[in-house]
Amino acid sequence: MAKPKAVVLLSGGLDSSTVLAIAKDKGFDCLTMSFDYGQRQRAELSASEKLSHSFGAIDHRVVKLDTGLFQHSALTDLSLDVPDYDEEDADKIPVTYVPARNTVFLSMALAVAESIGADDIFFGANIIDYSGYPDCRPEYIDAFEKMANLATKSAVEGRKVSIHAPLVNLDKSEIIKQGLALGVDYSQTVSCYQADDQGRACGYCDSCTFRKKGFADLGVEDPTRYQ
Amino acid sequence: MAKPKAVVLLSGGLDSSTVLAIAKDKGFDCLTMSFDYGQRQRAELSASEKLSHSFGAIDHRVVKLDTGLFQHSALTDLSLDVPDYDEEDADKIPVTYVPARNTVFLSMALAVAESIGADDIFFGANIIDYSGYPDCRPEYIDAFEKMANLATKSAVEGRKVSIHAPLVNLDKSEIIKQGLALGVDYSQTVSCYQADDQGRACGYCDSCTFRKKGFADLGVEDPTRYQ
Repeated sequence: MAKPKAVVLLSGGLDSSTVLAIAKDKGFDCLTMSFDYGQRQRAELSASEKLSHSFGAIDHRVVKLDTGLFQHSALTDLSLDVPDYDEEDADKIPVTYVPARNTVFLSMALAVAESIGADDIFFGANIIDYSGYPDCRPEYIDAFEKMANLATKSAVEGRKVSIHAPLVNLDKSEIIKQGLALGVDYSQTVSCYQADDQGRACGYCDSCTFRKKGFADLGVEDPTRYQ
Repeated sequence: MAKPKAVVLLSGGLDSSTVLAIAKDKGFDCLTMSFDYGQRQRAELSASEKLSHSFGAIDHRVVKLDTGLFQHSALTDLSLDVPDYDEEDADKIPVTYVPARNTVFLSMALAVAESIGADDIFFGANIIDYSGYPDCRPEYIDAFEKMANLATKSAVEGRKVSIHAPLVNLDKSEIIKQGLALGVDYSQTVSCYQADDQGRACGYCDSCTFRKKGFADLGVEDPTRYQ
């Protein structure tokens, strides 16, 4: 019997790579999607492609988005600096927030899922070790799923689409533990907001800070390639 | 005082052009958005640009989407024919359905709205004279609005985004009546699913059929340019 298909949003970072491993482990044939939206960390695009291949995805799609779509974010506007992690700012949504990004990504995943006959979409949202982005919260994910189940012809025909965020309540060390058990090679993943062209991390941004702490908390060696 | 800004989804058809006129009439500075997603009716793109300009929009954005994103629709797949309207099929979702299209368009409108500080998004969904598309129904629009109000930094900061679908319960003749009162020149709008390069309509597809009937029901001359 053919395996069910799933669409997996894959940024090439630690979380989404772990999610891809989880989706594969659950028995899905995975189509991975990455987005080229003018982000400064270009290395994540090649990391995604390699990770998709190494996990045997059935297809990898890179969607190019108009760079003007997402404005006023340090991830897309090179005139804004990516700040170092600062615990005092931990309750604020940082300048790396990209307007409605996950909504745009999930919407496109929904379009592709319906096109290929997949009822499952996976993404790596997480609310424990994260930067307070609103579009990672469980209530947001539930609302997106509700909307998605009214949006499509598949839904009208009685098929239910599920938005899976298997990491949403895990801390970074728990995520890494799962990923290692499933064979994720974290040296190939790129989480840093300002990785260089070779995918080497800065070690100081929010994303690097959470990631570093995850390996330390788990007590395993951090395989991240730093600049 | 500066006017509030709104994002208006503008396909260049009868409905969205009327919505632009309504949004302007309500006192908004309108940014219009069109999408180049490989649709067969290319004339709607130039119609949108002209209509945006003639209604004094503050900006017009054409978002180019990967043509592979939307598959298996007669609007994007030139190997599928656009069917003539057939009353017997009126309760089925037709082959012109594009997977998750309005969800993708509204998501991008949400990203742009947040980027420019707009809390209002207008689109021309309608459930009276329409083709049964699921992503035009009021329950879908409500679900999208709920999701949008959990998705963004603006929402977390207490700003509410509204998805306006002012035509949703109007029939075509009522829409045309409103548009004429607000100065819409319907000869410049392109509704046909297979308009030619000059924007001239086929007269036989679902979209042409609903539009024709609207002018006839209202008892005004149909200014549509036919092939």
